[in-house]
Amino acid sequence: MNVQSASQENIARLAKLIKGIKMALLTSVAADGSLHSRPMATLDRDFDGTLWFFTSAGGRTADEVEEHRQVNVSYAMPEKQHYVSVSGTASLVRDREKITELWNPLFKAWFPRGQEDPDLALLRVDVEQAEYWDAAASSLVPLVQRSGLTGE
Amino acid sequence: MNVQSASQENIARLAKLIKGIKMALLTSVAADGSLHSRPMATLDRDFDGTLWFFTSAGGRTADEVEEHRQVNVSYAMPEKQHYVSVSGTASLVRDREKITELWNPLFKAWFPRGQEDPDLALLRVDVEQAEYWDAAASSLVPLVQRSGLTGE
Repeated sequence: MNVQSASQENIARLAKLIKGIKMALLTSVAADGSLHSRPMATLDRDFDGTLWFFTSAGGRTADEVEEHRQVNVSYAMPEKQHYVSVSGTASLVRDREKITELWNPLFKAWFPRGQEDPDLALLRVDVEQAEYWDAAASSLVPLVQRSGLTGE
Repeated sequence: MNVQSASQENIARLAKLIKGIKMALLTSVAADGSLHSRPMATLDRDFDGTLWFFTSAGGRTADEVEEHRQVNVSYAMPEKQHYVSVSGTASLVRDREKITELWNPLFKAWFPRGQEDPDLALLRVDVEQAEYWDAAASSLVPLVQRSGLTGE
């Protein structure tokens, strides 16, 4: 199997594991080194190597990731003992075309002013590693590694 | 209100928010700076300022927290839009008396060799900050700050 197809297969496996999970937890590192998590609504689109979330450009999440770009995104389905840990690099994206492409009116629940809200931004997470929790073995099993995903 | 009673009140509020949540997510920082999360079974005891979890002394979680002590512990009840983020300092505790005190036979699901397992250890998290997610405001609200918890 060549690097390209291994990478595609890893992406497809992760896409399948997180599909349909509506909320993720994003953990970031604050300026004082403490770790903080908050729920993030997931987008109803297939994972292709990059995760996207809507966020407030002036909010604390944006501040924290601009200071310290390494983040964790967790997906949980406790009723199935199903957990996925994703490690990546976050960046804030204010591109209005991308916002329009990814916007869904359902997000008005979090951003009542809608996609025209000047404070609305995207959080882009470039995935570097992903693991799933093997409940039987009580351990994290690598699913995606940087080399597998990017072919580096 | 004096510092001591403010501290006790903060602890009681956090205790109430996380009571009954059976699994938490622990996020730690690996040597390469990437953030990783995994589920941890919670103990059926009231929070008193310190969180305790059983872990494997030889496992990756123990390795990561010994290298980098700052961790996040998240508690989620998605069906109620209820999320709590706890920031603290983790340490590995191998004290057999403490293990006996906190052991519950239910933990055999994760540690089949039981409390005599020489690899069984405790992960102690001294809580420094805690926040809950205010769904209406889409923001984290401080619940416990270092000063409130310890009176520093």
